[in-house]
Formats: sequence, C-alpha cells, structure tokens
Amino acid sequence: MPIIDSKTNKIIKDPTLKELEEIAKEMRAYSIIAITAAGSGHTGGTMSIIDIVTALYFKKIKHDPTNPDWPGRDRVFWSAGHKAPALYAVLGMSGYFSIDDSVLLRKLSSGFEGHPNRFKLPGIEVSSGSLGQGLGVALGSAISAKLNRRKYNVYCILGDGELNEGSVWEAAMSASHHRLDNLIAIVDRNRLQIDGYTSDVMEIEPLRDKWQSFGWQVYECNGHDMEEIMSALNRASSASGKPSVIIANTVKGKGISFAENVCAYHGISPKDGVTGDESLKTALKDIKCSYFTKEKVDKLLKKALAYQSKIDKKIESIIPKFSTGYFWNETDDMKVIMIPTRMGFGKGIEKAGSDSRVVVLGADISDSIKISSFYKNNPERKSRFFSVGIAEANMTVVAAGLAKEGLIPFIGSYGVFSTGRNWDQLRTTVCYNNFNVKIVDAHGGISVGPDGATHQTLEDITNLYYLPNMHIAVPSDSIEAEKATLAMKELYGPAAIRLAREATPVITKNNSPYEFGIANIIRYREKKKNFTDAFKIYLSTDYKSENEDITIIACGPMVAEAIRAAYIMKEEFGTEARVINVHTVKPIDSGAIINAAKDTKIIITAEEHQRGGFGNIIAGIISEKKNYKDPYIMGMIGIEDRFGESGKPWELMKSFGLTAEFIAKKAMDLLNIVEC
Amino acid sequence: MPIIDSKTNKIIKDPTLKELEEIAKEMRAYSIIAITAAGSGHTGGTMSIIDIVTALYFKKIKHDPTNPDWPGRDRVFWSAGHKAPALYAVLGMSGYFSIDDSVLLRKLSSGFEGHPNRFKLPGIEVSSGSLGQGLGVALGSAISAKLNRRKYNVYCILGDGELNEGSVWEAAMSASHHRLDNLIAIVDRNRLQIDGYTSDVMEIEPLRDKWQSFGWQVYECNGHDMEEIMSALNRASSASGKPSVIIANTVKGKGISFAENVCAYHGISPKDGVTGDESLKTALKDIKCSYFTKEKVDKLLKKALAYQSKIDKKIESIIPKFSTGYFWNETDDMKVIMIPTRMGFGKGIEKAGSDSRVVVLGADISDSIKISSFYKNNPERKSRFFSVGIAEANMTVVAAGLAKEGLIPFIGSYGVFSTGRNWDQLRTTVCYNNFNVKIVDAHGGISVGPDGATHQTLEDITNLYYLPNMHIAVPSDSIEAEKATLAMKELYGPAAIRLAREATPVITKNNSPYEFGIANIIRYREKKKNFTDAFKIYLSTDYKSENEDITIIACGPMVAEAIRAAYIMKEEFGTEARVINVHTVKPIDSGAIINAAKDTKIIITAEEHQRGGFGNIIAGIISEKKNYKDPYIMGMIGIEDRFGESGKPWELMKSFGLTAEFIAKKAMDLLNIVEC
Repeated sequence: MPIIDSKTNKIIKDPTLKELEEIAKEMRAYSIIAITAAGSGHTGGTMSIIDIVTALYFKKIKHDPTNPDWPGRDRVFWSAGHKAPALYAVLGMSGYFSIDDSVLLRKLSSGFEGHPNRFKLPGIEVSSGSLGQGLGVALGSAISAKLNRRKYNVYCILGDGELNEGSVWEAAMSASHHRLDNLIAIVDRNRLQIDGYTSDVMEIEPLRDKWQSFGWQVYECNGHDMEEIMSALNRASSASGKPSVIIANTVKGKGISFAENVCAYHGISPKDGVTGDESLKTALKDIKCSYFTKEKVDKLLKKALAYQSKIDKKIESIIPKFSTGYFWNETDDMKVIMIPTRMGFGKGIEKAGSDSRVVVLGADISDSIKISSFYKNNPERKSRFFSVGIAEANMTVVAAGLAKEGLIPFIGSYGVFSTGRNWDQLRTTVCYNNFNVKIVDAHGGISVGPDGATHQTLEDITNLYYLPNMHIAVPSDSIEAEKATLAMKELYGPAAIRLAREATPVITKNNSPYEFGIANIIRYREKKKNFTDAFKIYLSTDYKSENEDITIIACGPMVAEAIRAAYIMKEEFGTEARVINVHTVKPIDSGAIINAAKDTKIIITAEEHQRGGFGNIIAGIISEKKNYKDPYIMGMIGIEDRFGESGKPWELMKSFGLTAEFIAKKAMDLLNIVEC
Repeated sequence: MPIIDSKTNKIIKDPTLKELEEIAKEMRAYSIIAITAAGSGHTGGTMSIIDIVTALYFKKIKHDPTNPDWPGRDRVFWSAGHKAPALYAVLGMSGYFSIDDSVLLRKLSSGFEGHPNRFKLPGIEVSSGSLGQGLGVALGSAISAKLNRRKYNVYCILGDGELNEGSVWEAAMSASHHRLDNLIAIVDRNRLQIDGYTSDVMEIEPLRDKWQSFGWQVYECNGHDMEEIMSALNRASSASGKPSVIIANTVKGKGISFAENVCAYHGISPKDGVTGDESLKTALKDIKCSYFTKEKVDKLLKKALAYQSKIDKKIESIIPKFSTGYFWNETDDMKVIMIPTRMGFGKGIEKAGSDSRVVVLGADISDSIKISSFYKNNPERKSRFFSVGIAEANMTVVAAGLAKEGLIPFIGSYGVFSTGRNWDQLRTTVCYNNFNVKIVDAHGGISVGPDGATHQTLEDITNLYYLPNMHIAVPSDSIEAEKATLAMKELYGPAAIRLAREATPVITKNNSPYEFGIANIIRYREKKKNFTDAFKIYLSTDYKSENEDITIIACGPMVAEAIRAAYIMKEEFGTEARVINVHTVKPIDSGAIINAAKDTKIIITAEEHQRGGFGNIIAGIISEKKNYKDPYIMGMIGIEDRFGESGKPWELMKSFGLTAEFIAKKAMDLLNIVEC
C-alpha cells in the first residue's frame, strides 16, 4: 500500500514504477549533497539501498507522514544505521519533514545524526548504528503485533556485512521459532564491506541456504529493478507461517560512477575521493536528476553553511573567556602538532609486528583503527592477519585460542564493540583465563565526531577496569600510543589501549620519560614557541613536590587539555597546577595520586568518558589513603551521564564542556570555594 | 590414536570398544558420586556426554597425561563447561590426576570447580562456563596449528542448547571461511535444556542444514554407541578442506533411570531428586559398575567429608573474633529469617504481571532466576511469556522491540549474561533509545556458591551505572526485592534489579519505609529476640543525625552484614554506626551519602562486587560535595580484583572477607587510625 491518510484511509501518493525511479534519483541527489556538505557519511550503502526503500516507503508499506506514530502503520527498522542518509531522504521525500533540511546531515543539533536517533526526527523507529541489533528489535515489534492482534507488517533493513554478527542469527532462529510471518528482512547484498569484498572479509554464502536452514522463506531480487523489488516485497508480505527475507542484489555506491563497487566509498564523501577526480558535480551528473539545477544545489549547500556558522557562534558563546585566546594554535606561540593517537598505535603495531608471535585479527574496520598498519608496509605479514568479519564476540575468543598457543594476538574495533559488545567474552574467556590478548579500544570519547553516539565510546574505562587481570593504557598522544603499544606487547596478560579518532596535540617527545604503570607529572614552566617546550615531564617516582595550588589528573588526550589549563591558570592567575598523566589506568599509579592529594589538597579529574568512570577511581584511591585530617576537595570534568551526538570533533569537545577552558574555570571555582 | 607416551610415541592404553563401555560406566559412577557429595552439579549433561568423551580421550586423540602441555597433543575445548564432572572423570581416568580426588567437586580450593578452571587442574584447555565461547577459542587454536604447521586436531564439545548463542554461528562462519579442517565440533544433542525441550525453548532444527549452510561437513551418530561414535570421530578427523561437526544424538541423564530425559536433572544431584525417591544407591545400581562396592563408595564420600571439615576449620580460623559469636542464628536471640532476594523478585513479578502490559522473556533459566513466577500461578499469562533460548543479546533487543510497542518487558539471566553478554545491546538499543526494558541481574556476588566464577556476577554495578537512562535497584532482602520489582515496573525507562541466589537475612518488614531513589538509614537500637526488631529504619530524608561514630554504606544483602556489623560494634565497643541502605544505586541518593560524610567523617562501603565498583561511586560523591576542611576517611569492603570460585555460599562470603565480622574489624581499624 502506498502513503495514506491514516484518518480517512485515503491514498495520498501512489506512484508508478517509472515515478519510483524518478523519486529514487531525487533521493540519491539529496543524499550525496548532504554527504558532501557534511564532509563525511556512508555513500556506498546509502546508494545501494535507495531503490529498495523508495519502493518500500512509496508503494509498499502503509504509513502516514503526518501521523508518524499511527499504531496501524507498517514498521521499518533500519538495523544498518549507517545508511542514514537514505533513511533521511526517504522520510523527507515522504513528507515527514522538509527534505531540504537533510542537507544538515551530521551537523551538531540538526537532528540528522550520523546514525539515526529516533528522538530527533519523526519516522525513525529505532536509533541504530551498532550492527546486528535491529532484526531482534523488529522481532519484538512483530511479536507485539501478534500479541495485540494488530495487522501491521514489520520490515528490517540489514547490510550483508552485518550478517557476520551472531546476534542476527540469534534473531533469525528466534523469528522462525515464533513463526513471525509478519516479519520481513531485507538484505542489501552489495557484496562489499569496509575491509573488502564480503567473500574475502567473511564469506556468508550460501546465503539462501543459511536463511532457509534458520526457517525463513527466501526471496531474491535485483535491488535496482523496481519491478523485481515490488514483486519480491509483495511475495514476502504474503508469506504465511514463517518470516521472510529478501536478498536484494545491489551495487554499492549505485548511481555514482566513481563510487560504484569501490570499497573506499563505504564511509567517505566525494570531497575525500580516492582518485582525486571525484566531485559532487560528477555525482549529480551521473544521477541525472533534472530537478537539481545549479541554483537548487547551491541553495542547499548555502543552507548547510549558514547552519554551521550559527552553530559556530553558539559554541563560541559557551566557552569560558579569559584575557586572551588560548585555544590550540590560535596564537603565534605555543604551537603544537596534532596527530590522532590511533596513528601512534599504527606505528607501534607496525614495530610490534616484527615479533613473529604477534598476530592480528581484523573486524572490518582495520584501516580506520590503524590495525592494518601491522602489514601495510610488510605484506609478508598478511599470513599473520586473520579477518573475522564484523563479529567482535568471536574475534575475542579466537584471539584467546591463538594466545593459548603462545601467540600474541591484537584485536580491535571501536571501543563500544571491542570492550562492550564482547564484554562477557573478555571477562570469561580472556580475563578469567588470563590469556595474553591485546585489545584496541578505538574511537574513545566524543571527539569521534560526526558518526555520533553509537560510535563514541564513553564507558570503556569502567567496562575494563573492574575486570581482574586486565591492563589498560590510555595514551595522551600519538607518541605515547606507540610506546604503550610496544609496552603492552611486552607485558603478559590481557591489555587494552584506548585510542582517539581525531587529531589531538602531541605533548610528549620521543625521549620523554614513559614507564607502563607509572604516571607522569607534567609542569608548566614558561611560554615558548612550541607548546611541548613549555612543559617539563617527570616520572611520578622522580618528582619532588613544588607545593602547587591544585592538581589536575587526566588520561588520554584530556592530558593535553589539562596542561593547557595549567598554562591558562598560570598566565591568567599565577596559579600553579600539577598535572598527572595517568597513561596507565590499570594498574594505576596510586602513589602519584595520593601524593598529589596530600600536597595540593585540591584535585580535578578530566576524562573524555562518562564522568566518574575515571574520576571515581581517583576519588576512591584518595579517600582510602589520605590522612584523616588533611583538607581535600575534588572536581570532575567528563560527560554528564548522557550519550554523545554528531558534530565536528572540537565542536563536541567544547559543547560537552571538555576543553582546557572548562578545566581552568572549574579549577578556579574550586580555589575560590577553598579560599572562602 | 589412544593415550601415548609423548617422549617415545608408545601406546600406553588402547582399550577395545567393550573396554570403553566399562570405562564409561566407571566415569558415570565417579561423576554421580561427586555430584552427590557436592550436593549440586550438572547430572544431565554429564551423563549424556560421557560415552563420547570416553571414546575421544581413550581411543581417538593423541595425548599424554604425564605431559599435559605437550605441544603435539590434540586439543579438546569444553565449551559446555557445565559438563565439568565428565571432564574431571575422563581426565582422572586417563591419569592426569587421581580420579578419587574428583569427589571433591565444587568444594572450596579443591580445584574441581563447578565449571572448569584451567589453572587448577592439568588437562583443562580452557576455563569455561559461559556458553557459546568455546568454539571460537578452538578456532583460534586450529588457526594457530595451521600457522605453525602443527599436525594436531582441535575438538570442541558443545551442548545443543548452546547453539542458541549467536557467537557459535559467528565461530561456525569463521571456521569454514578459514577452511579449518583440523577443527571438529561435537554437539551433545540431548534435546533438553533447562527450561524444557530444545524444540520448545528454541528450535534449532534442521540442525544438519544449519551446519552445512555454514560450510561444515556434518556427521551424525548415536552418542551412546561406541562403534558409531568411533566411526563418526574417524570420518570427521579425516575430512579435508572444511571443518567437521558430529551431531551426537544422546539421552540427557543417560544411564541413571530417574534422570534420563528428565529436564529437572540439568543441574541437580540425586539428593534433590524430583520424585523424592532418588538416591545415589539407585543411580549406582543403574550404572552397573561392579568396581563400585559399598566400601569404595563410602571411602569416597568420607574423603569428601574429611576435606570439607578441613575447609570448615580453615575458614573459621580467618574470621575476626569477638567476645562471643555473632553469626546469623548462632545464638538464641537476634533470630533472623533467611530468604533469597530472587524469591522476593518472584513475588514481585507475579504481582506486576497483573498489568497486561507486562511481558516476560525466558532465556532458559527461568525457574532459577524466578522470572517464571510471572506465570506459575497464572497459567493464562503464558501467552505473554516468550522463550528466546540461550541468546541474551537477542533477548535484550527483542525486549526493546516489545517496549517500543508499549509493552513492559522483563528480561533476565545470571547477571554476567544479562548485563555483560548483552552490554552493547543494553547500551545502544535499550539505553540510547530509552526503551522501557526491565532487566533481572540475577546471581549477583560470590554467594552464588558452587557454580563458581563464571556464574558469579561481580562487575554488573559498573556495567550498568555508567549507562545513561539506566536505573539500578539492589534490594537488601527479599521484601525489598518485591517492592523494587513493583517500583521498576511503575517507573519509565531501562531499569535493572540485582538479585542474590543464596538465602540472606530478611532485615526489613512489609511496612518498612521504601521509596525508589531514596536510601534508608538503619540504626541499631538494642538486642531483641528478632534481629529485625533490634533496628530502626528511616527514609534518609526523614533522618536526623545522631552524630554516630562511623557510617557503613552498603547495597544488596551486604546491608544485612553492615547492620550486623553495627550490632557487633555497639555490643563489643559501644561504637555507634549509621548504616545506609543504598537499595537504589541509580539514581543514587547523594544527599544521604554527603550528610553521612559530614556527620560521621568515617565511611565504610560494603559491596559483594569488585571492590570500588560501588565504593568508588560513593567516594566520588563525597569527594566533590564535602566541605574542604572537614576531616574524612574511607574504607572499602569488596572482592579484591579477582574472580570468585566454587564453594558453599557462606564459606565464600567468609573466605572473601565479606561478612559483618570483617566490616566491624575494618571499622574499628579506621576508628583507631583516626584516634591516633
């Protein structure tokens, strides 16, 4: 059924197949304009799914864009949340909101999150982004329909790489067990995932057999042929007694010449084109949608720019102000180089790889987390690299098996998935067994940026800290990340390293003191041309108290913010701050922390993590070990018990109150309280 | 190949099929004696797998019990760790250790853990107990063999219920992708899981098709016919190019008349027999193993008793001593009733179920966690109960889908699985979406007892606390558990309830004040006949400081220990202790905590959890909110960054230093420090 008025049951739109094709073109254009304006986004999967969802939303499901929560509507759950631009396009074109607004994709507070958030736009059934979860949600909705004797159908959009996740097969088994013939899964079979062809990353064929053996009715179609799509949808929705799946054979990047079947176009915009020859102009020419005149496109891009400039101003207004600007590289002195810590890990794993015991497991985002640096310059090491697909739980236990045989496996993913999705596996198989598994906990913090909440790891420190036998490195910069990688290779036992996606200041030097398990004390000395020369770094065990006014305890790139706060405080108020770089969170350097509490009596913790995940550990150590009568107070900087969102990395750091300016302000507030 | 001498390659034992049958009988006898002596253990699955592993260890794999780590050995990974008695029997009979020692099953420090621990006995390849993880570990070992060009084979023992877990299918997909023909899975197809027939709990048929579609060579055999078993093993081990699976059709409880095909015999001993007519004597008669004379059996049982009495003495010696004994119900006054908090939850869910929006998902341990009380007395509610099998990740997202449609789903499992196995699902699908899902976090703490480390949840508070939108109830007794269950049904949003398996003191009354989110203050008044009458309970918001000497802050059944500690301290030293019952850990009652710190200045936290998981939260609140110059010190009682183990519940509570005696001692130590 096409789009209807839920009050009168009248048909509002009922396009012909030819018209569907035109709508799909328009959606492709809107999507690629939005992705281009955002500077990032999932081009490949967006383009491959567009024809299917055009048919689905405009000709198949009953829904009413003016009444998004209408109980009688058919539900569509987008399990593959990264196809968000296609979702926004189809919702906008259907009339849920102004389609022009979709050009605000991935911009702070726009609602057009990198991965969909159901609270921010109408028509989104579920906030998604972590693969393999949507089919189960759809299943719950389908069970509910049966229970409440409601007649709606439930659709679920899945990627083919996503089928690596065991949770998809749990849901598949469960759906047939409960005979949910009101459930229809659609697999976007574009045959590419991030690390390469699905057949190379993780073979899922024979796919029809798999679904059949899990009790599903299977249909196949050409996912770019409206007639075939409609026929498959119609057959699937009339199946009885069991759930149906449509395997839609598609082309990743479909419709855009330079993106079609190009693996790199999984998550980039034409701006970052792989040949350098790619552009929005070419893309629009390929799409052949006459509606998008130059004027129309310019208007949309201008809309995005205008929105961004409004955001820029808003962010600027919330930053604590001092007599001058202190932000990174805003002035001619105190210059700093910015490199993501994941790059330092890349260097480290390349070096660590010379040890033939080191093996690496790939979970389909190997370049993104830089674990592929293991073999990039050393192709012979490919024999020690094993692709396990998007299956983090399995990756973890496979690593345990390799470690058992004397190898040193490195595994990794975005931290939500490599410390959370696999938490029980980490606990029971890795930590309880004390296997020598090394875990890359990438994309820590909100500075991940435009991908949004589902990909911003904010709970990993606590996920890991309370696991016996675990070691945790949270390097402050890329140089330390390299050192930490080599250190964790050398030590025996489970060890994780938390990495940041975004470029952050390099604040240490190759010859700066670094010992795993011993914190560093960092002190601001005087303003210099280069930021790093303005500070002196000590091993905590070598440091003699200078009776500073306050201590800031931080880990990861928040250490850079902490020492910049120390610089601000000294320059603005003459306040001396001791900074402790807790680059090793477990085992933690309790001595350095207790000494600081005794010496300075005022402590601030700074973490790009749920507030207290790190700070409460510090509070616990001090509370147990300080002298009873010593005065003492603490303040914590962190994420305030909420999820992240899409935006530019530094924009998020500012809007979540995490930069040096906020630390300095908090510190001065505490000093004022104490002096009163 | 049979058992060999790894140095000379000489065959040590090569039994005939007939002899294998005799060995299997002996193993059955040893296992049931051990389970009986332990008073608990997995009779059903132990008996169904015994014939297969007899053939495997005595006639198929190459191994040398005198050289357990011999690199050339074939590996056997027991993914279904609950079949531990069979593992101990086959290792003992093979000569890895004295088989008679296996009668120490599930006793503290004996090494014969409820689920196997590889550090405690030779011949155990992996510590297991959390289902669905072993096949991946085996896969890692098999990859390693290929990488290092070693000729060993890798076997993995799986249960059939275990195949509900998606991680098994991740491993299955991965094994065929990597063409691991040195990997052989064995499925103990006994067709029963804890909640009932596999076909009712979660249909896994057509099983042969499933494995084939995942790229495996499939063999079937009668798992109790030595000839068929050997034939299947030989065919599987000579397969080429792909991994093999043997579906061994078995009978759960095989060989013991009253246990065969009886679902209840999954995890109980003959002592707890379901008809009352069951006994070790009958079991041994059924097994028909002439070796087990009455004398032999008595000798074994005596060995177990003697060991236990040694343990009892050892435990008693480590408890802090006072002028008299204060342990629960040791004296004629201060009597207390003991009921597990899970029972209170059972009552609560039965009541909550009268709301037709409440639906319940079952993950195969529904009776154990008392979630089945939802329908036990109300069979018509069965239509609102949905079995999802052993698939906690899927259970979580299905619940989200049900919640989305306006229902109030309760899900649950042992906390390791219902807050950890599904952590990413909880984070992204439940909390980020703010779906109204209720989570039973059962078997919190080490007082779970004999099942051991894998089933003792020690990290759930931190797993949950740092998730935005989550609510956490940790009721102190069964009465509070019932109130908390009803409260969490009423509130909107994700909410978890932490429950204890073991009976613990009932310290509140039906009319005791209880408000979700507001802590209680508990004060010892005077010795009474009944423990509950000796204490007065206040809402924290109603309480006026009595300027006590110390505060003890606790959650869950540790509150009972805390107030018993208050009683000890008052009676022994005249010390007044304020106890705070933090029955709601999120949102936490900061006011009650800060007031206590200001009023009493000495704080002890007590948690049956990794130390600091709860305590550090308290430390953080106080550190930020107390007055700068107020004296303050803290002590924490909890598990010291280690895993639990098997033993009797109260034995573990004592040996891990968690009972009132340890709290009182810690408190007095702190008071002494402060007074010095």
